[in-house]
Amino acid sequence: RRKKQLDADELISKICNGNTTALSRAITLVESTASAHQQLAQQILEGCLPHADKSVRIGITGVPGVGKSTFIEALGNHVIKAGKKLAVLAIDPSSSVSHGSILGDKTRMEQLSVNPMAFIRPSAAGDSLGGVARKTREAIMLCEAAGYDVIFIETVGVGQSETAVHAMTDFFLLLKLAGAGDELQGIKRGIMEMADCIVINKADGENINAAKHAKNAFAKALHLYPPKVSGWQPKTKLCSALNREGIEEIWKLIESYFEQVKTSGYFEENRKNQNAYWLKSSIENALKDRFYNNPKIQEALQKKLVAINTGQTTPFLAAQFLLELNFAKD
Amino acid sequence: RRKKQLDADELISKICNGNTTALSRAITLVESTASAHQQLAQQILEGCLPHADKSVRIGITGVPGVGKSTFIEALGNHVIKAGKKLAVLAIDPSSSVSHGSILGDKTRMEQLSVNPMAFIRPSAAGDSLGGVARKTREAIMLCEAAGYDVIFIETVGVGQSETAVHAMTDFFLLLKLAGAGDELQGIKRGIMEMADCIVINKADGENINAAKHAKNAFAKALHLYPPKVSGWQPKTKLCSALNREGIEEIWKLIESYFEQVKTSGYFEENRKNQNAYWLKSSIENALKDRFYNNPKIQEALQKKLVAINTGQTTPFLAAQFLLELNFAKD
Repeated sequence: RRKKQLDADELISKICNGNTTALSRAITLVESTASAHQQLAQQILEGCLPHADKSVRIGITGVPGVGKSTFIEALGNHVIKAGKKLAVLAIDPSSSVSHGSILGDKTRMEQLSVNPMAFIRPSAAGDSLGGVARKTREAIMLCEAAGYDVIFIETVGVGQSETAVHAMTDFFLLLKLAGAGDELQGIKRGIMEMADCIVINKADGENINAAKHAKNAFAKALHLYPPKVSGWQPKTKLCSALNREGIEEIWKLIESYFEQVKTSGYFEENRKNQNAYWLKSSIENALKDRFYNNPKIQEALQKKLVAINTGQTTPFLAAQFLLELNFAKD
Repeated sequence: RRKKQLDADELISKICNGNTTALSRAITLVESTASAHQQLAQQILEGCLPHADKSVRIGITGVPGVGKSTFIEALGNHVIKAGKKLAVLAIDPSSSVSHGSILGDKTRMEQLSVNPMAFIRPSAAGDSLGGVARKTREAIMLCEAAGYDVIFIETVGVGQSETAVHAMTDFFLLLKLAGAGDELQGIKRGIMEMADCIVINKADGENINAAKHAKNAFAKALHLYPPKVSGWQPKTKLCSALNREGIEEIWKLIESYFEQVKTSGYFEENRKNQNAYWLKSSIENALKDRFYNNPKIQEALQKKLVAINTGQTTPFLAAQFLLELNFAKD
């Protein structure tokens, strides 16, 4: 145990000095399912906590093919030129199946991956979104302790992963393509309402008019929504990540957002609400797991569902029965 | 107990014969918090269940002032003229405070309220949405057993009540006003995505052009969303409930929806999913109540929130601590 504390202390001190090897190792421990690793990871996290919480966290999402890597490479290089240290993480619950459909290959971001001011970390694997979200939140804290000023959290938009990313970031950016059926194909329910900015990528060459048209359509749609709690009116922007066009303007927009929400107090308030959200959702997921993994419940639940669907009982009566069964003393 | 069963049997038989006094009495029992009433209510529900589940359920929402009562009166009369029996229920969790901000006064719907083919029931009161939702779901079953073919569930759009109404209906209709800042003011997050039809009401007099413009804007916005699981492409319609204009067309649209989803099998599938949803949400709300009402937890939770916000622990570690505290044997 003493040896372990020494290991933890050494890693903590190295991380806080910005050592990326130590940072990588700590993230690997956070991601490990081995209980010895988990224990060490929790010690490291507690040691790093007082040094975390100083970055801005930006969520970036978009369907495959929208040009996320190129966009992150372009925006990332711009951020680093402005004197910031950048970490790029990803949340991708599908990665356990696809072996990392995003960020699995660092070479996707050629310049960023060799830039000493950038830290790129492939997506945490895992079969539950809750588990992946937890690991990503912890990786954010470690990166913050290591002095990264700006953190990008990328998501590919599988299942509920955007909601998770939205709940762990300060600013949420949605990448879209112009024309080519993308407008009609639409986006997943709820995503557009989360966006602080919709960026139409690949606004270059023959695509420019379609991009302008799409920008216009999204701007109008955004105006149909009520004002955000943050007081921020979501914006739409054009960009050609490939030609590095529009990138500076997007970063200025993001900076103006942070100026506004830090002045208004929303930034702090939102971080507190996010903490409470993660606390409650961790608790509630555990309560649900405990209930539904009870073998008595699994059997009875299936029977009750059949009974409900054949008009023999109501969902509320069935719930009452199952709750009594769960809490009955054997 | 024998006397009670006789009471229950008598009410069940009267309800199934379409006796509205018996129906009203059963809904009052469902709404009662007295445990004797609750017991009787559950007996009646179980007796009515085999006769329920034969209606179409239509959710209708819109902000105050949009003309919901006039619209329901107009559409309701049209439905009755088509030979249907209509029940109008409401879900309004605010009604315990406002003493029924909707449907509290039957005279809002002058013609419907005196039509023997219509059954209008003021909103169930209650201080939790879960409780009100349960009572409304049970009232739906009772109305179905009483032979009502079409059920309108009205909501005023407080808190999460639209989500609850969406989860207990087959078709979801959003009423909107043209111009007058209503477009800019927007609607609550998520509501537009739930709608199967957006109706722009008060499309009359000087308002007609603004109404057409609004219809257009909403139609475009609806196309930005992905296709619905039902396969139905949400529509926009104009209407003047006051002048009874557009009503027939809206009912035809609703009928074509039901034709489509009954043929495709989505109607049945969706009802099953809704049953599972109500079963699970009843269970999960009960699990959460149990946890958060534990006095040990209430105290420790506040302390942990402070610790998280001051960087002394993470939401995940705090959750672990609270779960252990909750399940510890005293």
